[in-house]
Amino acid sequence: MELATYHAGNQRMEIVLSATAPEHATIESFQPPTRLLAGPGPSNVDPRVLEAMRKPLISHLDPVFWERLLVMAEMIGTVYGRTDGASFCLSQSGTSGMEAGILNLVAPGDTVVAASAGFFGNRILEMLRRRGAKVVELTAPFGQHVPNDQILDALAQNPNAVMVCVVYAETSTGVAHPLQELGEAMRASGTDALLYADCVTAIGGMPIELDAWGVDYAYACSQKCIAAPPGLSPVSISSRAIERIGRDGMQVPYSLDLAEHIKYWIDRPMTYHHTTPNLSYYALDEALRLSLEEGLDVRYARHADAGAYVQAGFRERGFDLLPAASDQLAQLTAVRVPEGIDGKAIQGILLNTHNIEVGGGLGPLSPPIWRIGMMGVNANRETADRVLAAFDTVLPNGAH
Amino acid sequence: MELATYHAGNQRMEIVLSATAPEHATIESFQPPTRLLAGPGPSNVDPRVLEAMRKPLISHLDPVFWERLLVMAEMIGTVYGRTDGASFCLSQSGTSGMEAGILNLVAPGDTVVAASAGFFGNRILEMLRRRGAKVVELTAPFGQHVPNDQILDALAQNPNAVMVCVVYAETSTGVAHPLQELGEAMRASGTDALLYADCVTAIGGMPIELDAWGVDYAYACSQKCIAAPPGLSPVSISSRAIERIGRDGMQVPYSLDLAEHIKYWIDRPMTYHHTTPNLSYYALDEALRLSLEEGLDVRYARHADAGAYVQAGFRERGFDLLPAASDQLAQLTAVRVPEGIDGKAIQGILLNTHNIEVGGGLGPLSPPIWRIGMMGVNANRETADRVLAAFDTVLPNGAH
Repeated sequence: MELATYHAGNQRMEIVLSATAPEHATIESFQPPTRLLAGPGPSNVDPRVLEAMRKPLISHLDPVFWERLLVMAEMIGTVYGRTDGASFCLSQSGTSGMEAGILNLVAPGDTVVAASAGFFGNRILEMLRRRGAKVVELTAPFGQHVPNDQILDALAQNPNAVMVCVVYAETSTGVAHPLQELGEAMRASGTDALLYADCVTAIGGMPIELDAWGVDYAYACSQKCIAAPPGLSPVSISSRAIERIGRDGMQVPYSLDLAEHIKYWIDRPMTYHHTTPNLSYYALDEALRLSLEEGLDVRYARHADAGAYVQAGFRERGFDLLPAASDQLAQLTAVRVPEGIDGKAIQGILLNTHNIEVGGGLGPLSPPIWRIGMMGVNANRETADRVLAAFDTVLPNGAH
Repeated sequence: MELATYHAGNQRMEIVLSATAPEHATIESFQPPTRLLAGPGPSNVDPRVLEAMRKPLISHLDPVFWERLLVMAEMIGTVYGRTDGASFCLSQSGTSGMEAGILNLVAPGDTVVAASAGFFGNRILEMLRRRGAKVVELTAPFGQHVPNDQILDALAQNPNAVMVCVVYAETSTGVAHPLQELGEAMRASGTDALLYADCVTAIGGMPIELDAWGVDYAYACSQKCIAAPPGLSPVSISSRAIERIGRDGMQVPYSLDLAEHIKYWIDRPMTYHHTTPNLSYYALDEALRLSLEEGLDVRYARHADAGAYVQAGFRERGFDLLPAASDQLAQLTAVRVPEGIDGKAIQGILLNTHNIEVGGGLGPLSPPIWRIGMMGVNANRETADRVLAAFDTVLPNGAH
């Protein structure tokens, strides 16, 4: 190989072809095992979605890609039940989707009513505190949800509140919040406050109707019931919320500025914002197509069936579920670890001996639980049977 | 399919198997064309890296994955020339890496000296303003860089400055900043200010020695000279900068809090922060292995050769390059669009007729240019010849 001399600025004069051995030739390639991902996510990915990632990489500034963004935006809006405002995705995890809603819609000093009954509700509180908001914190124990009456009362007592935050499907407990009821009550109350909802574990697995329910900002992720690989956060924002981004001179970090994201996704000619991870976009695009091909109602019913089936299986074996039946999500089931059993050790055996991942309790405040996900391609009775059979091997007497 | 009744909260009672046709069965799958990505990035990805994305997906909380993070951190540190502090990656684009350094190390009201001579330097200024910093702005025209003497003078006049920001390799102009010289001069001056450097277009394509040069914070991206798919931002932070994260009670957004990222990446037992996009991590892991197998010096020399070759080709055809030769990056070449030629139209012909992507000027402040990337797997004379041949077809008389 013939080499040109390379000097661009004085400090790079010394660059010549090195004859020394490469630095790290001994690093072995990574060899992850094959797992059944039956925890709270990521879930396993449909082979058709993985195949979509083999399509040729084109650039975030390629007009062919811009065109497809509008198709993706429409599909994301459909899954969210939104035609108003803007629906698109952030090139980041659900954690960024969570914080983007706060940084765009809450200014330091604003009052916000936030309900938390789990790890992710608590994370919202933490982000609000970091934003400098005055937070009216409403909490309930892990396994419950804050009653809507409490939220509405707090809102009535804080008429200057700019937003109400809830978690529609709490990933740390498997509890559903009655979001439709809250949204309808807020509309009926005439409040000007926005409604913000965590839909991370909900999207693609249970109904979401943001327009009809009056939810202004929602965020989710790609790797649960949508069953794409992790890495993207589908978000949706109402027209009236878009108008409040950056109001009163409040500063929004550039990388999370939703108005800038909308300029890239929706406005034409588009404005460059960041380099999108296009192979991940191809995967989400295909996963959304699969969801819509299946039919959202059919998909929700499939998740409902798988969840009811696995929950019945755990109850038959004597295990208690963390939430009340009326609050129980289908796609995520928190099973109480019986007294005297080391839940983490059981998780380790399931992982290392059976190659089955189930989740544990998240954070120091969680009671001892296992979290079983029936999400995406795993939302079926066959997967449930496989998980239950593994538990039977490890704990042959069930909870007894 | 037998369906369980599903009611978790009142609003979901109505869910039953729908017999209606799926909503969007008519959406065709996305079919991106095969392009030679010879612009400023993303660049084409090595087949071995794409193959790594086919490995089984495991979770961000899988102990097998945590172990691998430490290997990845070591490889990222090697590419950055850093053993001090922490090197890892953000699950986001380089834009987020840019802003993370500001949000973690600059409090509102802090004084920062920032040098800009291009689109990305200007973006740093914008992020600093949004952070509420007092910005000592030093600018130079597109195609130049701010002289180090000016930066050092500004620092001497603002001894309370907490940070100096520069762009090592300006992606919008193809200009190299003499970073080593600046870092050494700052150390010699005894200043307490941190040194922050954009290494987006540099990483994997030219030498970076953060420890030796005294650079405290650097960020980059996966999709240029490292030649992984877009989506991740390798970052590196010195020990003394880590100690300043969150100093004096300053608030850092949770999703970009580098101390939280370090707890996940480096500390053991790890603390959950966000769901990492693991297929993208597999790809970056393999791309880093490839870089180190090749040998960094060999890799830099390959980029240097390809850049010098394509630059000679454009000059032979009568084109002017934007930067002075002494400031010219190898891996990214900004070619001035000759008077009377519509540069955007030429880009369109190259894209649509030749399936070759080259970049244009970025933003309204840029002079008319094309940006040619010789990055990663594309950093070779064969690719350069293909690009030059396409220009010859579209502009048979060169610049004349």
